Amino acid sequence: MTNNTINLSPSDLAFVPFVSVDNMMRNVRSVGVETFMRGLAGYIEEDFLRWESFDKKPRIPAHAPEGVVELMPTSDGKTFGFKYVNGHPGNMREGLQTVTGFGVLSDLATGYPVLFTEMTILTALRTAANSALAAKYLAPEGSTTMAVIGNGAQSDFQCLAFKDMLGITEIRAYDIDHGASIRLARNLASSGLNVTICKTPEDAIEGAEIITTVTADKRYATILTDNMVGSGVHINAIGGDCPGKTELHKDILLRSDIFVEFPEQTRIEGELQQLDADHPVTELWQVYAGNAEGRTGKDQITLFDSVGFAIEDFAALRYVHDMLPQTGHFEKLDLLADPDDPRDLYGMVLRSGANGDNQAA
Amino acid sequence: MTNNTINLSPSDLAFVPFVSVDNMMRNVRSVGVETFMRGLAGYIEEDFLRWESFDKKPRIPAHAPEGVVELMPTSDGKTFGFKYVNGHPGNMREGLQTVTGFGVLSDLATGYPVLFTEMTILTALRTAANSALAAKYLAPEGSTTMAVIGNGAQSDFQCLAFKDMLGITEIRAYDIDHGASIRLARNLASSGLNVTICKTPEDAIEGAEIITTVTADKRYATILTDNMVGSGVHINAIGGDCPGKTELHKDILLRSDIFVEFPEQTRIEGELQQLDADHPVTELWQVYAGNAEGRTGKDQITLFDSVGFAIEDFAALRYVHDMLPQTGHFEKLDLLADPDDPRDLYGMVLRSGANGDNQAA
Repeated sequence: MTNNTINLSPSDLAFVPFVSVDNMMRNVRSVGVETFMRGLAGYIEEDFLRWESFDKKPRIPAHAPEGVVELMPTSDGKTFGFKYVNGHPGNMREGLQTVTGFGVLSDLATGYPVLFTEMTILTALRTAANSALAAKYLAPEGSTTMAVIGNGAQSDFQCLAFKDMLGITEIRAYDIDHGASIRLARNLASSGLNVTICKTPEDAIEGAEIITTVTADKRYATILTDNMVGSGVHINAIGGDCPGKTELHKDILLRSDIFVEFPEQTRIEGELQQLDADHPVTELWQVYAGNAEGRTGKDQITLFDSVGFAIEDFAALRYVHDMLPQTGHFEKLDLLADPDDPRDLYGMVLRSGANGDNQAA
Repeated sequence: MTNNTINLSPSDLAFVPFVSVDNMMRNVRSVGVETFMRGLAGYIEEDFLRWESFDKKPRIPAHAPEGVVELMPTSDGKTFGFKYVNGHPGNMREGLQTVTGFGVLSDLATGYPVLFTEMTILTALRTAANSALAAKYLAPEGSTTMAVIGNGAQSDFQCLAFKDMLGITEIRAYDIDHGASIRLARNLASSGLNVTICKTPEDAIEGAEIITTVTADKRYATILTDNMVGSGVHINAIGGDCPGKTELHKDILLRSDIFVEFPEQTRIEGELQQLDADHPVTELWQVYAGNAEGRTGKDQITLFDSVGFAIEDFAALRYVHDMLPQTGHFEKLDLLADPDDPRDLYGMVLRSGANGDNQAA
């Protein structure tokens, strides 16, 4: 902004568009949850198709006994994005979210952020969109029934994304906490999905072409054992997503064709941590690009070992950034110092008091 | 917050204290720039004294032809902090800041952020506080004169910190752009410092016990050549802080005892990149802890090869976080989703529309 008059108010250069939780919900509602996720899937696919143009790094973690905080940066050379995300399984006991997040998108030509947004809701949406996108390439054609094992915060979004993008009509829900399944069924009551609450995991996977596992315990668990999984299904494994946390018995993995986002990260964090470091896997972007095969036969078990990768968040940030001019659901955050003379940062501090406003904001 | 009634407004759990640029200036003015920097230096020294309790990583960069964006995370096992910072030398031509930044402090026990703040101004303050802290251990006793070569945005803060913490009374200022020196002198007019604007670098270092170099070009430059630097001085080298950017002739380095923050980072980013990978250096925290010697004699040239390290930002975030209850200069940002039932994120989105507010915020 060229401005030759002395102006003690922050200029437009100082402001970064900010999407609060409240505004994220407005943005989602403005197009609808399912359309929003379909839009996200489109941006994710677009970015996976230019996989090689991204700077890819494993996430950067800070560990504590209670959980982990991670930064997930990536860049395509023109735009930089990162997500801050935590994983604290015990948080629910305190009335806090297990996973919260926020993210930033920046213009690499100037280094200035162009979007700061909540990503707790956005991550839930992009995770489901990403699962459904992978399933479009991997699930049996004409799938109508999905088992959902683990009925926590992520499960609703999975159901809705698979309904919209795969044509799923029947949900078979199981959780060790029956109340969680009731909550899920209630939220989906007017979605058009038929939800059957099941008493056992075995019951849940009965007749399902797609099995989604999305439990939250931070430990090695065996949600699915080998004899439970028949041929021809697609397993959408969301819950095994950090070291020491898996959901599937190793023998299922050995019978499956395994598809992953970024092998370097999945071998550390995913179900894959149970297998040898050189166990063959297929990168999803290669499938999307037509360089590798997805589902090849009726009896094949396909497994998406999902851990969540930075490029998915980058795509989600892009999607939200691009929709804001239409929806207007954002605020302007006074985040960047913008002195009249860029060399005169101290002068800005010095003269800011000239308003005489030395009181609390 | 326990709340058994249905409440569609964000609860206190959803809010993160946010310090805007405007509020950062209010916080600084509430105690004064010099006191603020002295406070920062105290927190930095405190954190350097518990150096071994920190998880230390080199910064994580994303490069573009125009500059770099970096994330600088660190953690002491209980608290996590990171800074986002860019470096774009050409930004000034566009009326933008060369360096801007923001940062986050989080509680590792829950993963929830406890502070989100602008760090453009804060970084300028902590950089000068950090320089003055090092100089307290390294500069000749009784120093009164400082040469300041490079009179951009950082130079004001350097002068004020050295005045307050070292007792500097005379500033000898030089910049290739005479206007920059005039700007500096004008800003310091009522500071109590005597500022002499010099026509050459040689002139500026005349009689100075401390030489501060703080230029901004992103290239190998030689601000100081070997014959310019006499014995017994302390060199506070700020400007050489990324690969390919240095300010001092190699021969000066070879005559100096070199002090650094984190050798692994300084060898890549600092003046040190000009020397062999095993050139001996002293870590500043060892000097502060009394494990290594600082200045040992009158003729010694001490050199602080400053690049800026994550622990300094961590300390700065702690300092701001701790002052907010007193000053009240912050806002509350609706950054964290806080559904009544943490498992029910979709239910929160679903029911948020019950207000009927489907219009732009």
